[in-house]
Amino acid sequence: MKAKVYITLKPGLLDAQGKTVKSALDSLGFKGVREVRMGKYIELDLNGAKAATAKKEVERMCAKLLANPIIENYHVEVER
Amino acid sequence: MKAKVYITLKPGLLDAQGKTVKSALDSLGFKGVREVRMGKYIELDLNGAKAATAKKEVERMCAKLLANPIIENYHVEVER
Repeated sequence: MKAKVYITLKPGLLDAQGKTVKSALDSLGFKGVREVRMGKYIELDLNGAKAATAKKEVERMCAKLLANPIIENYHVEVER
Repeated sequence: MKAKVYITLKPGLLDAQGKTVKSALDSLGFKGVREVRMGKYIELDLNGAKAATAKKEVERMCAKLLANPIIENYHVEVER
């Protein structure tokens, strides 16, 4: 079973990496970029289990290791 | 207009960061994780334009700056 995890910085927090990427895009001539927010995308391959169980397990992994819940939000999608 | 970019390491390439995360999950007691692949997720806020034009523009940004096309694949989604 495959799980996809999307981790984003909470809104309102300064994204220094995103600001740097935005400046780089500006200086490469890409116009019209208002904001860039950098996040993480993680793919997990899991041994069989029910989708609902797998989703809860991956959410626990996010809370404990994959994300920093103080400054980051995470979203988990499970597909068969 | 919002664009979402998903950047993943090409299949077959060794993902050292993913292997480290997998080991950490194992040692935290999470069983049944077969593989972990780390990627990047980028949100862009763009000034108006047609969705099709915006998608092409963001794909150019990926090819030139956001991704390393030699070792990474990228996928762009545009939403209004």
